[in-house]
Amino acid sequence: MATLEPADPDFEARVRRSFARQPFTTSLGAVLLEVSPGQVVVGLPHHRGLTQQHGYLHGGVSTSIADVACGYAALTLMPPGAAVLAVEFKVNLLAPGLGERFTAVGRVVKAGRTVMVCAGEVVAHRGGRDTPVALMQATMMVVRDRGIED
Amino acid sequence: MATLEPADPDFEARVRRSFARQPFTTSLGAVLLEVSPGQVVVGLPHHRGLTQQHGYLHGGVSTSIADVACGYAALTLMPPGAAVLAVEFKVNLLAPGLGERFTAVGRVVKAGRTVMVCAGEVVAHRGGRDTPVALMQATMMVVRDRGIED
Amino acid sequence: MATLEPADPDFEARVRRSFARQPFTTSLGAVLLEVSPGQVVVGLPHHRGLTQQHGYLHGGVSTSIADVACGYAALTLMPPGAAVLAVEFKVNLLAPGLGERFTAVGRVVKAGRTVMVCAGEVVAHRGGRDTPVALMQATMMVVRDRGIED
Amino acid sequence: MATLEPADPDFEARVRRSFARQPFTTSLGAVLLEVSPGQVVVGLPHHRGLTQQHGYLHGGVSTSIADVACGYAALTLMPPGAAVLAVEFKVNLLAPGLGERFTAVGRVVKAGRTVMVCAGEVVAHRGGRDTPVALMQATMMVVRDRGIED
Repeated sequence: MATLEPADPDFEARVRRSFARQPFTTSLGAVLLEVSPGQVVVGLPHHRGLTQQHGYLHGGVSTSIADVACGYAALTLMPPGAAVLAVEFKVNLLAPGLGERFTAVGRVVKAGRTVMVCAGEVVAHRGGRDTPVALMQATMMVVRDRGIED
Repeated sequence: MATLEPADPDFEARVRRSFARQPFTTSLGAVLLEVSPGQVVVGLPHHRGLTQQHGYLHGGVSTSIADVACGYAALTLMPPGAAVLAVEFKVNLLAPGLGERFTAVGRVVKAGRTVMVCAGEVVAHRGGRDTPVALMQATMMVVRDRGIED
Repeated sequence: MATLEPADPDFEARVRRSFARQPFTTSLGAVLLEVSPGQVVVGLPHHRGLTQQHGYLHGGVSTSIADVACGYAALTLMPPGAAVLAVEFKVNLLAPGLGERFTAVGRVVKAGRTVMVCAGEVVAHRGGRDTPVALMQATMMVVRDRGIED
Repeated sequence: MATLEPADPDFEARVRRSFARQPFTTSLGAVLLEVSPGQVVVGLPHHRGLTQQHGYLHGGVSTSIADVACGYAALTLMPPGAAVLAVEFKVNLLAPGLGERFTAVGRVVKAGRTVMVCAGEVVAHRGGRDTPVALMQATMMVVRDRGIED
């Protein structure tokens, strides 16, 4: 993988500001753990409101934090004034989501001028043991000159 | 499309019971609007806690309700004692999610013995106008004899 | 679905010229059956060189003709001078590909300025009976000013 | 990633026999380069019959060799008598396919009893330089007792 260079020296503060303005992510209880060029890590403590009918983390939740991690990983490489838009993503659910907390890692696999392809992984942490629970492949778009900004 | 026959005459009550036991779906505010053989419709009133940084419905939320609609559409066709498991899904986000409420329609496109392929669509309703905001293609699995049930 | 308007009155001739210049599609034996605004149909007669180890149409072949049908469906709506680029696609294989011939229908589901989302379906025709064998959801990009054209 | 153990000591010969029986893969000119537990590498020399209208490797071809590499990676971990079935895959096309030859690497990311999730990558080799051109995330199924075998 080529070295990924941020086009905006202020990339970390910018990602943190944008993340803080996402009501849904906040209402899930997600936090931003790491922001580096081309990679973002999101943490999520478990609570009952995040589960599905069998008591596991809902697939929509693991998808949401993977999407957030991938989108912000893409944003770390975008020039000032641009915004990130998720075009599409695909998720495989690998194992039941059981854990005290979860981590989503998003990283840019290919950084194009307009399109960025990202890979995301969600891991469940339970009693010292880590289990991958979801795998994402996502397409993010660099949006310029449309009056929105991240 | 072949006619889709429920394998469990009690399919509607079963879907409604399982839906009511999903804490995450309830915490989003989603409701079950329609349950018919091979098709389920989920409704979601808008509120600020569901939005992303630009004020639109978060892509993770539209994905979640599409996943729920697709999963329960698959469950309507499963025999008693089986459970539904989302193997994977892919979502295209078509337009900014702006509306007073949203509807997700999930329907079974191919009902196999072990694998069911579903199509989902999320529509935003705003001032009498309907806009498709997300499109899903999903793979659901029929799980038997694993001690879980829907 | 909104009415789809071609931005180039010469759209059909343009699609036919571009299709004729695809050596791979030609080597499969695929032919262009229909070209209308936002929809393209590709036909493929069966032959042994297209099969996998169990004698069915190879999944890579059904994917290829669905991709071609979706890409050209997108091109029918593009302005003169633009080219179509497949960003990504996802395919579910629904049934074994058994038939004397196959048809792939690609249609535009959402036509944006830069991104077009398409749906594709491949059907096997066998002894008068039609069976859907593959379902695609694809993202196509409108490429301008890069020195390539379709 | 957990260590991947073949369930069939004869896994390599079995993959090679099945690959040799795929007319489509042979007609592309693809060859099996490496077979190890959970990973398979397929090679493909460039020729004009594999290209699209701009002279690049057709996306359907890169998808086909990635699918083959992923499917056989899954087969290396399956018990004797089982067959591999591609349920679905998603591909991002990362860069124009330009090269003297191409390599597809497929590897198993999660090996379940019934479902195997695989990651595939296609790389173009050109004048000593390697460029990733396609990225796949695929779902393969372990098929037993249906009268087919690989």
